[in-house]
Amino acid sequence: MELQAEMPELVLASGSRVRAEMLRAAGLHLTVLPVEVDEAALKREARVAGCDGAAAALALASAKAAAASALQPEALVIGADQMLACEGAWFDKPGDTVGAAEQLRRLRGKSHDLFSAASCWQAGRPRWSGVERARLHMRRFSEAFLRDYLAREGPAVSGSVGAYHIEGPGVLLFSSVRGESSVIRGLPLLPLLGFLRRAGVLRT
Amino acid sequence: MELQAEMPELVLASGSRVRAEMLRAAGLHLTVLPVEVDEAALKREARVAGCDGAAAALALASAKAAAASALQPEALVIGADQMLACEGAWFDKPGDTVGAAEQLRRLRGKSHDLFSAASCWQAGRPRWSGVERARLHMRRFSEAFLRDYLAREGPAVSGSVGAYHIEGPGVLLFSSVRGESSVIRGLPLLPLLGFLRRAGVLRT
Repeated sequence: MELQAEMPELVLASGSRVRAEMLRAAGLHLTVLPVEVDEAALKREARVAGCDGAAAALALASAKAAAASALQPEALVIGADQMLACEGAWFDKPGDTVGAAEQLRRLRGKSHDLFSAASCWQAGRPRWSGVERARLHMRRFSEAFLRDYLAREGPAVSGSVGAYHIEGPGVLLFSSVRGESSVIRGLPLLPLLGFLRRAGVLRT
Repeated sequence: MELQAEMPELVLASGSRVRAEMLRAAGLHLTVLPVEVDEAALKREARVAGCDGAAAALALASAKAAAASALQPEALVIGADQMLACEGAWFDKPGDTVGAAEQLRRLRGKSHDLFSAASCWQAGRPRWSGVERARLHMRRFSEAFLRDYLAREGPAVSGSVGAYHIEGPGVLLFSSVRGESSVIRGLPLLPLLGFLRRAGVLRT
């Protein structure tokens, strides 16, 4: 439940409030060090290299962890990323309510995958990485529903890829949800906790 | 997102704070009417009748909805229940930290099922019911971990069957979690929302 005295500092290389909340809820003590990586360029590279969404999420998580590990080599750094893939297309954060409406119309009536990856680095080297998938089916909601949903949730979800928070009214968008909730929220939490136990950061 | 003007009042026949939170987070307006049913007697009956955990959860959810519908026949009443089954045994709320420790030792190293059922009644008659399963595997945690866990979570989880809140440090108990998060928290939420749409309570 606690960091052992001799353990390295744990650093989360992600600005996501939800990821920090999940790790702290699990009892981890960590500091947050958001790093800038050129996500658009990394995604283009991953596309050219023939990566699927899982591999792209891993590449982005590793890049964030590598950058933070260069700044804090003594710490155990967790990089993390999530990709949304639907019928071969990758989605970005919509940015505003107009973009949110567009994403939701593209996802409506279809299944999409969420790939959540984490990569743990120390002293500039990778120690562990993992990626998990969740699969969600968005129902054929009406335009009236979409209007109501965006009036209520639009600003809140424009910063989230897929334009939903499944723990709130976003659940109304879906007819089926498969996958562990932390994966949907952005972390492969169970495998990550397994690594942190093997690394001696968490009690077994 | 809203109750339509001509719609019946929605009543939740369950004292569970978490269930009310999930339904309200999805945008439903509801009142809570916890009813007393003899759960122990119903479970014994279900055992004798050869029910599995899913059928027992449905029977309990129906009994709660029936009792509340008798009190408020004009309302659309949602009854709900959850059963934890491990290797054929059904678990109850542990009640105190000693009971929580005992449950956790029995569940350790094994998979268990959570069955979450809901039953919707109106005018003393059932209109819909559904049950969903989640399957979780509890890892072989150490006694030192268990001591830490109970020191921190014991009083909070003694009212929860299985002695964990998976959205908090309870996640540290598990090596794998399969099933939708609302099912783990006590409601077959997606099928229930589907019924409420078909019933005209929620926008399609």
